[in-house]
Order: sequence, then C-alpha cells, then structure tokens
Amino acid sequence: MARYCIGVDLGGTYIKFGLLSEDMKPSGTFQLPTPKGGAGPVIAGMVKGARKLMADHKLTKADVVGVGVGAPGPMNIKEGIIIAMPNIPGIENCPMGRLVGRKLGIPAVLENDANAAGYGEYVAGAGKDRGDMVLLTLGTGIGGGIVVDGKVVHGAHDIGAEIGHLIVEPGGEPCGCGQRGCIEAYASASNLARYAISRFERAKLLPTALRQIHERKKKIGKELDMGDVNAARKAGDALAAEVWDRGAYYLALACVSISRLLDPNLIVLVGGMTKAGDDLIRPVTEHYRRLHWILTAPKTKIVLGKLGNDAGMVGAAGVAWAAFGGK
Amino acid sequence: MARYCIGVDLGGTYIKFGLLSEDMKPSGTFQLPTPKGGAGPVIAGMVKGARKLMADHKLTKADVVGVGVGAPGPMNIKEGIIIAMPNIPGIENCPMGRLVGRKLGIPAVLENDANAAGYGEYVAGAGKDRGDMVLLTLGTGIGGGIVVDGKVVHGAHDIGAEIGHLIVEPGGEPCGCGQRGCIEAYASASNLARYAISRFERAKLLPTALRQIHERKKKIGKELDMGDVNAARKAGDALAAEVWDRGAYYLALACVSISRLLDPNLIVLVGGMTKAGDDLIRPVTEHYRRLHWILTAPKTKIVLGKLGNDAGMVGAAGVAWAAFGGK
Repeated sequence: MARYCIGVDLGGTYIKFGLLSEDMKPSGTFQLPTPKGGAGPVIAGMVKGARKLMADHKLTKADVVGVGVGAPGPMNIKEGIIIAMPNIPGIENCPMGRLVGRKLGIPAVLENDANAAGYGEYVAGAGKDRGDMVLLTLGTGIGGGIVVDGKVVHGAHDIGAEIGHLIVEPGGEPCGCGQRGCIEAYASASNLARYAISRFERAKLLPTALRQIHERKKKIGKELDMGDVNAARKAGDALAAEVWDRGAYYLALACVSISRLLDPNLIVLVGGMTKAGDDLIRPVTEHYRRLHWILTAPKTKIVLGKLGNDAGMVGAAGVAWAAFGGK
Repeated sequence: MARYCIGVDLGGTYIKFGLLSEDMKPSGTFQLPTPKGGAGPVIAGMVKGARKLMADHKLTKADVVGVGVGAPGPMNIKEGIIIAMPNIPGIENCPMGRLVGRKLGIPAVLENDANAAGYGEYVAGAGKDRGDMVLLTLGTGIGGGIVVDGKVVHGAHDIGAEIGHLIVEPGGEPCGCGQRGCIEAYASASNLARYAISRFERAKLLPTALRQIHERKKKIGKELDMGDVNAARKAGDALAAEVWDRGAYYLALACVSISRLLDPNLIVLVGGMTKAGDDLIRPVTEHYRRLHWILTAPKTKIVLGKLGNDAGMVGAAGVAWAAFGGK
C-alpha cells in the first residue's frame, strides 16, 4: 500500500498543498487562498485543504504517515511553535503543526518555510541524491536553507541558515535587519533593481534603456525588476550589464564563503531571479571560480532549483517523512 | 571496568598522547618528538606512544575502545587517508589511522586536527553540554571546527570548516590560499602583527612603543607578536590599541556571519591570541553586539577555550568514542 506525507506551505496569499510519496515523488499540488482572521481561520483552512487532498486521492488516515507545515516567521522548531508571523496578522505563539495534526488525527511537524524549500530541493529536486546542500532564495530578500548529513540545520536558537544576512561588505549598505553589508542588501532581486534605479537617477545623462522602462512601469504602478534588467542586458544596455554582473559577483562571493564554512556538494539557487536560468548561473559560476581559493579546484556546484514554488510544500512533506517515516 | 579511548595529535614538532574516559574526562597527557623520515617512523612513533600510555595506566587492549588520530593537511575523512602533509615531508596518501590501529590491534579513526580541536572543546572543554559550537583557532593562520547536532561538519569534500577563509573584505588583502580578503589575512595573530609593523614602517614619525619592541626582538631573531601588541596597548600605546581593536573587529564580523549561517550556542576562541583572555573576548563581544542584527538579541556566546593545546588530542579521542563507543 502506497503511503504519503502531506505538505502544507503557508504563504501570505495562498496555502499550498500536496502529497509526497515514500520515494520522494510529489503529486496532487493545489492551492487555496490564505483565510483572513488569524490563527483559527488559517488552521481551519489548512485542515480543509488537507482533507480535500486526501479525498481527491482516496486516502484514509492510515495512508498518511504525517503532515508537514512550512510557515514563515520566527519559530521555535523543537516546540513546534510559531512565535510571530509578520505577513499574516493574528498568529502569535501558535503551535500550528500540532493544532493541524490534532484536527486531522495525523502526526504533524512544523518547519520554517525557507528551510522547508531547501529540504524540498534536497529530497526531490536539484539536490536529490547529491549530498550536502545549501539553498539560496533570491526574491525580495534572500533566504536560505542548509542540509548537512541529510538533516536541516536550524541552529541552536532556530535562527540558522539566515544566509541573506551573511556580511559581504563590512560597513556597507544598511540592511532591514539592522546589520550593514548583508548579501541581501547587495544581491536580492529587489535591492539590485533599486540599485539600478539609483544609478540612473543619480546620473541624469547616463544613457540606459532602464530609465525608460522604469518610467513606463511606474505609470502602471510597477517598478523596474531584474527581469527587465536581464532583458536590457541582453539587448546590449551597459548599465543593465553592470547591475546584473554586480548581483552575480556578490552571490558568488557569498557562495565562496558558504563553501569555506560548509563545503556543500551543491548550492541551489531559486526564486524570481533564477527565471534567467543560465544567464544567472553562468556569471555566478565564473565569479565563483575566480574568487575561489587555489588550494583545491572548485568542487561545489552552483545550480538552479527544480521545484519552483512547490519546493516549500514538498520540503514540508519531506520533513514529515523524516519525523514520522521511521527511517 | 573503566574504558578509554586514546587520543593522538600529530604536530610538526611533537606528537601528543592522552586518554579520554567514557564520561569525557581527559588524563595521562604527554608528548614525544615527531620522528623524522616520513610515514613509517611517524606511525612507529604513534604506536610506541600509545603503548607507553597503555602501560603507564595498566590498560590492556580490552580496556581501549578505540584510537583517534588527529593530523593536519588535506585528508579524505571517509576513507581515513591523509592526502599530503605540508609540515611533515614523506607522508602522502597514507591511511594513517588504519595503519596505527592495525599495529595496536585497536580500531582507529582519522580526523583533521582543527576539527579534532573543535570536537575536543565540544566534548570536554568550553563547549561541554552547551550544544552547537564553532571553534576558531587564532595562530599563524585561522583554523576552524564546526559541531552541529553533536557531529563534526566535514563538508562534502572534507574541506568544510575552513573558517579562516571566510571572505570579510571583498577584493581585500591577498591570502596565502589565493583568495582576497579572508578573515585569516586580517585577524590571524601573525597577520595582525605584520599589519602593526607595516603601519609604523610606513609612517616613520608615528610615535609608538611597538617600533622599539620590534627592533629589540629582531636582534634576537624574533618578531613583534600580538602578546607585545596587547602589552603595549595596556601601557597606553595608541597604535597598539588600534591594531588590537582591528583584530577584534574582524573576528566579530566573522562571528556575525557564522551566527547567521549556523546560529551556534558558542563560538570558542583558542590559540596564541587567546592568552590575552578577557582582553580579547571583551572587545570581540562588544563589536559582535554592535554589528549583530536587531531581529533577535545576540544569543551566541563568544568564549575562550578551556583545553589549551590538549584540545586536538582530546577531540581525536572523542571522535574515536563517537566512532566505536556504540552510542
């Protein structure tokens, strides 16, 4: 009889659901809008989604080994408690995994969403059967997940793997976290786009297509993003090329430091900027090789994630397999 | 019946030996000169020392659970092979642990010496019962050891925990490893002392006691060291204070990045510079708190090691307990 774990990934807009089989194959993914009104409605929404998933696939409780809930926000992993959730008001000191599990009558476990995404790529994505892995999520911020010897590294106070706050420029740009010079301040998609804007706004005569693109997007309530920058770079825009390369350089710098500390097999990049595919991996790898020590050849590979937005859900289910699968 | 593991720490000048009881209490430490002539004599010396240790304490093979050998140089941990040893010529592709173990008739395991020192502090020193820990050795270079969930982190290619080569100043000072801006290039004892010398040699009129100290030591074939710098700092020398603070600043910067990635309970400092004791810990902790994010209070403690030069030997024995102790 096939057995499954259920993965639930709680986001500010949607909750994503899916199954993960014992051989780490995801299936049945769907999403529901995140209910408003705090912990009660959100938990009810998770239970509803999980029941729908089981009904759709004709699963009984006996078929489901466990439920993994991935969620943002500071949490106490050992106790399974969400401390706070900046994006979803009304959820504080909430043992969310346990509450969902109790309502379903299935064992449940809570995991940080970035760690879950890392573990998802590890068990079923780019990192499958590839050994120690570090994930970098390149979006508004930079998040991270670390898997060593098959286990998610949480840190002693559950604030490990905050790779976006590795300091790459001491005394550099202020970061939202209160530090200066974090990699997030230099290489997150939104901060890189902001850097591009600051460049052409400070130099009114600098010829760049980015200025027009930005002005055009502003009229429809949007902003220049790194997709625009990569497109302009490909069309030959010099500022766009410089900004894109700056991002690749800082990411590579972080990857070198990550390699010196953790020496993973893989560094997996996911998130908005990775839509550029090889346009991102190539310059990051080039800078990485250049910045890398000469004591050994570069051994850590920098690759794209494979699961897209499903990584967190898959990883949450993977964490449930690790917790309740009896392996 | 009391059971022990034997720790052996191979250095360029001495081999250190000692026992570690099942409750992680070290005893019987002594050292022998490292024999010249390559792998054969070195292995014979290790076997001789281990036999002496057993004889001194009236132990038979039945009393000894395992032998741990800590050694420098690139190695293949899984295979137990030393690839090369820059400080001790004639040891290449040598399965040193296995060879020592076979001659003694006791199971043996090989470990990198910096990792062993980290594990030693973890099982029997500053990190005992304190959870996840990172070690920094502050000497000619900066070495490191990482313990997560009770296990030494080696990395996928056995080149992890090379914390001295975390990049803290991109494009900065060249490091012997081929990278630029490594923490080792900024905050190792010898590089800090060299920085002090370069400061007063470039500015002939700069008033500092360090100049005279350096000239005096040169006559007896020595150089200014960080012990001199700390002494001059305490006597009110401004350049000495600046150099000392520079070291503390860069160490703190590395500690912040280590905290963001690994969030350990403890960062343990050992090696020559830690002879300064609280004179080192205080400014490193002050910079750490200042550079640290505001999302959580600083939780990782920065402390001095407790085992001194015995850490590597104790940790090697600890690794043998982990490998053969059946826990």
